Amino acid sequence: MTDEVQKTPRSRIKREFIRADYQRETINGILDAGLVCHVGYVIDGAPYVTPTLHWRDGDRVYWHGSSASRALLSQAGPADACLTVTHLDGIVMARSGYFHSINYRSVMLFGKAMAVESDEEKIAALHIFMEHLAPGRWDEVRPPDDQEIKATTVMWMPIDEGAAKVRTGPPDDREEDLSLDCWAGVVPVVTSLGTPDPESHLPEGTPVPDYLSRIRLS
Amino acid sequence: MTDEVQKTPRSRIKREFIRADYQRETINGILDAGLVCHVGYVIDGAPYVTPTLHWRDGDRVYWHGSSASRALLSQAGPADACLTVTHLDGIVMARSGYFHSINYRSVMLFGKAMAVESDEEKIAALHIFMEHLAPGRWDEVRPPDDQEIKATTVMWMPIDEGAAKVRTGPPDDREEDLSLDCWAGVVPVVTSLGTPDPESHLPEGTPVPDYLSRIRLS
Repeated sequence: MTDEVQKTPRSRIKREFIRADYQRETINGILDAGLVCHVGYVIDGAPYVTPTLHWRDGDRVYWHGSSASRALLSQAGPADACLTVTHLDGIVMARSGYFHSINYRSVMLFGKAMAVESDEEKIAALHIFMEHLAPGRWDEVRPPDDQEIKATTVMWMPIDEGAAKVRTGPPDDREEDLSLDCWAGVVPVVTSLGTPDPESHLPEGTPVPDYLSRIRLS
Repeated sequence: MTDEVQKTPRSRIKREFIRADYQRETINGILDAGLVCHVGYVIDGAPYVTPTLHWRDGDRVYWHGSSASRALLSQAGPADACLTVTHLDGIVMARSGYFHSINYRSVMLFGKAMAVESDEEKIAALHIFMEHLAPGRWDEVRPPDDQEIKATTVMWMPIDEGAAKVRTGPPDDREEDLSLDCWAGVVPVVTSLGTPDPESHLPEGTPVPDYLSRIRLS
């Protein structure tokens, strides 16, 4: 993947604070466009990268806790986390192997992973997630009971350190390669929703809610 | 994300060696089905999760080096890495918030990240990647020159520690929730290729290679 970095020089992996509003808008857009993130932790000195679901509420990013985050919570004090979201938009076919790339939008966020503590805050965070995923559905489903709330781990960190990386557009071939006899261009990658598959106990004729066709995937 | 774990109990995040052949087949299938992985490193004690492209050759997984992996290579000795690949297959809508989930296939691999050292090995590894991505294309594009090979970082680790996690099927509602008046089921998520978009210098009538329609995305 060619590093076409927005506001982050190629050789620099140091954390940086998110200052510019336009970068923050880019970051919010990338976070809000998808459901699945990859969260990295350090456990016993080694890296763990787990896929999970994330959502945003203003200046915070939330994610659903995995067994790795539950292990972290048994340690003393908040742990460092890196939350990365990546959308693949296309495969960039250049006229040399070297200039092949992908079009993508990605965000890396750094911070201290914190657990949402109180039941009320957990319910509020999960409500926001559901409203983002499927507006209106929260009021249709059975509310969580105490045991379910206890069994759910919700983590969060502030959105204040990180960077967005975006690559768009055609391959960037060398001038002298342009006349080579080889197809070049971009093959778009499209993520879309299929036809909803009702659960077997659902009464026939149950209407398919509108919100199911509006889920944002990328 | 509900942890529906294959051969990895929910509460256990310890590494485990990949013993069973069927698990190895599952892992290979998940790795081979996609292009984008997330690699985690520990740099100065903190986690970094970077998206990059991966491919497999037998018992090794390879990935394209990012600025983070280049930073690692300046350290002494091979560094721990965790490489995770996730395919989102569907959104699982249950009749309570708690039982919502996603259908997915995911692999986490652990090991020491090593750089491919010699130019010959780098070329061989990149050749295998291109053959996996677009069989036949390697012979059509300009071969890499020495400077391009030097500028490319290829990393690898053996596939011998890790686990696959897979969730499939409908929501797993409580018996007493089945009669609730609420749509339930799975909304499939489909990742597909769009129409290839030729680069502007490509002569009109240049045929679109067959391999472009066969790129595996998930």
